[in-house]
Amino acid sequence: MAFLDKLKKIWSLRPSRKMRAIGIEHALLIDAPNVFIEKSVARPKPKAHELLVKVSASAINPVDTKMRAAYQNDGEFRILGFDATGEVIATGEEVTQFAIGDCVYYAGVQIKPGSNAEYQVVNEALVGQAPKSLTTAEIAALPLTSITASEILTDAFGYDITENAAQGKSILILNGAGGVGSILIQLAKYLGMVVITTASRPESVAWVKNLGADYILDYHQNLHEQLLQIQHDKVDHIAILQNTDAYWPLVLQTIKPFGRIASIVDTTEAVDIAPLKNIGAQFSWVFMFAKGNYGVSMQTQGDALNRMSELADRGVIQSTLNKTYNGLTVENIQQATRDVEANHMTGKVVVTYEAIQ
Amino acid sequence: MAFLDKLKKIWSLRPSRKMRAIGIEHALLIDAPNVFIEKSVARPKPKAHELLVKVSASAINPVDTKMRAAYQNDGEFRILGFDATGEVIATGEEVTQFAIGDCVYYAGVQIKPGSNAEYQVVNEALVGQAPKSLTTAEIAALPLTSITASEILTDAFGYDITENAAQGKSILILNGAGGVGSILIQLAKYLGMVVITTASRPESVAWVKNLGADYILDYHQNLHEQLLQIQHDKVDHIAILQNTDAYWPLVLQTIKPFGRIASIVDTTEAVDIAPLKNIGAQFSWVFMFAKGNYGVSMQTQGDALNRMSELADRGVIQSTLNKTYNGLTVENIQQATRDVEANHMTGKVVVTYEAIQ
Repeated sequence: MAFLDKLKKIWSLRPSRKMRAIGIEHALLIDAPNVFIEKSVARPKPKAHELLVKVSASAINPVDTKMRAAYQNDGEFRILGFDATGEVIATGEEVTQFAIGDCVYYAGVQIKPGSNAEYQVVNEALVGQAPKSLTTAEIAALPLTSITASEILTDAFGYDITENAAQGKSILILNGAGGVGSILIQLAKYLGMVVITTASRPESVAWVKNLGADYILDYHQNLHEQLLQIQHDKVDHIAILQNTDAYWPLVLQTIKPFGRIASIVDTTEAVDIAPLKNIGAQFSWVFMFAKGNYGVSMQTQGDALNRMSELADRGVIQSTLNKTYNGLTVENIQQATRDVEANHMTGKVVVTYEAIQ
Repeated sequence: MAFLDKLKKIWSLRPSRKMRAIGIEHALLIDAPNVFIEKSVARPKPKAHELLVKVSASAINPVDTKMRAAYQNDGEFRILGFDATGEVIATGEEVTQFAIGDCVYYAGVQIKPGSNAEYQVVNEALVGQAPKSLTTAEIAALPLTSITASEILTDAFGYDITENAAQGKSILILNGAGGVGSILIQLAKYLGMVVITTASRPESVAWVKNLGADYILDYHQNLHEQLLQIQHDKVDHIAILQNTDAYWPLVLQTIKPFGRIASIVDTTEAVDIAPLKNIGAQFSWVFMFAKGNYGVSMQTQGDALNRMSELADRGVIQSTLNKTYNGLTVENIQQATRDVEANHMTGKVVVTYEAIQ
């Protein structure tokens, strides 16, 4: 077995080896011709603490669109995709946590090539052992949103991810049906919280109910009045997963003294946090790529993913996968990205790579 | 002794007993006639977890001026003063941490009568045993600023107040010579930090140097250039103790990725925290009265004061007292408040009450 591993590794590191990758060379709108293109590029090699992963599926997220819009038109072929699962086929010299053959999952970093490719390298600190009880597509749906939801609860709200760690605390999740919301509802319930979330379309309402939300508010109606009706017009925590600007007045009206607020959504105006001072409340941004981009506290993300695998395998967390495309093709990446950009995606959309390999 | 205590307590609780107090009945400027007035009012009685303290000295802080300005002209006699030391002369039925005769110190809460009076009641959770090695005036100088400086380090920056808990981390203190800055410099050094602070007048420069600041920058000159010169143009922590609005551009320019920023000073404009998102940095308000006003985590303030006493008695923390007036009189409260409002107070100004009793 050790000999086979060695052979596999030597083979995978041959400099001549190429791989198929889908990426961009321009910042184009989603329906433009050649918004994504396929290229044959050099297969990367794992250094030091990096793993070389044969990617088997990748989820699409709003960050793919943001990065495409921000592309500098410098002619460089940029591989997107920041949510992946696959098999470790080679390891850097200093890797300690993983071995060849491990099935892993990760979101990675923005500053290196993404997962819309046959192979990818990723720092082991950012990687978790994949859940054993889920399908490849279900696994690929998890990492980015699991890390984000975990960091809302740990880094912004100060809890451990353990059963009933926030027993009886209330959380208002502003849009629970999206990718992050779908995990956050489940983790918040696991922590013992009263979960109030917004959703509107019948499909979304059914979705968040199934994930365990205690109260579901219609964001087309007056939210403060609905909160009064359920006697939660003041809450301990608010997670803003959509339109921080628009929700801010409600947030200020609803947060309890010493409550904690997290947002993952950029604002167009300066957010007025002055009213939080006298009530001892706290606002935090949560941006999961900051750790990897700056190389700070990266192992917390690997730890978060390993914990998530355990919770998924114990049945505490259910899959948030909603849609799957089969095959690493320009058309599939484009269509999955279009689904995300339509902006009322419930749960996650994934592209699996096996079909055409 | 138990019998004497009992007698003392019964005596102190006689409903007929009165006390002298200095307070306001209008929101007047500091030089206005009758800005402060003296009255004879009922001595308060300690309930449940409250202590009745015979106040022996009180420090004046910016909060006194803020509360005078915010006074509602409702005709109510409002006793200010939120920094006190004195002797426990009676205890509520549920008090567990203190006994009659204890020498204590505390800042208290905004929502109850202050310490500019012969007697005051205060919840024991907010109270510490006074340092044994300091004078009455030196003790009175400590509580509000010690709690604030502690909460900057613990609540906003996430450290324990233990030796070298933040070894090698850098902190920029924007105005180190004031009350909070004078304590924060010393606590930050105790935690092992590199302390950079601003000061300008020769007296202030000498003051912060004596307290242990490693680098002293002149805020009349370009601060970014001075930070570059000392090779600390990026720092781990920034404590804004003066003019948050004016310093904000420098703060954004200077904070490291994943750095933490705290401010104790209200802004007039909305602070633009958007640039903190991508670098994983965090901004927190620190307002020490929030805990007491809302009855949240109050014991952390008693704990902070007990720890401060230990540090003072071990010689780790030196007195920040700079000026003392003797006697609980309208003139002394007014003059001490005028000193604070002149806005370049170095360290603390205290009024002791013994002289005319």
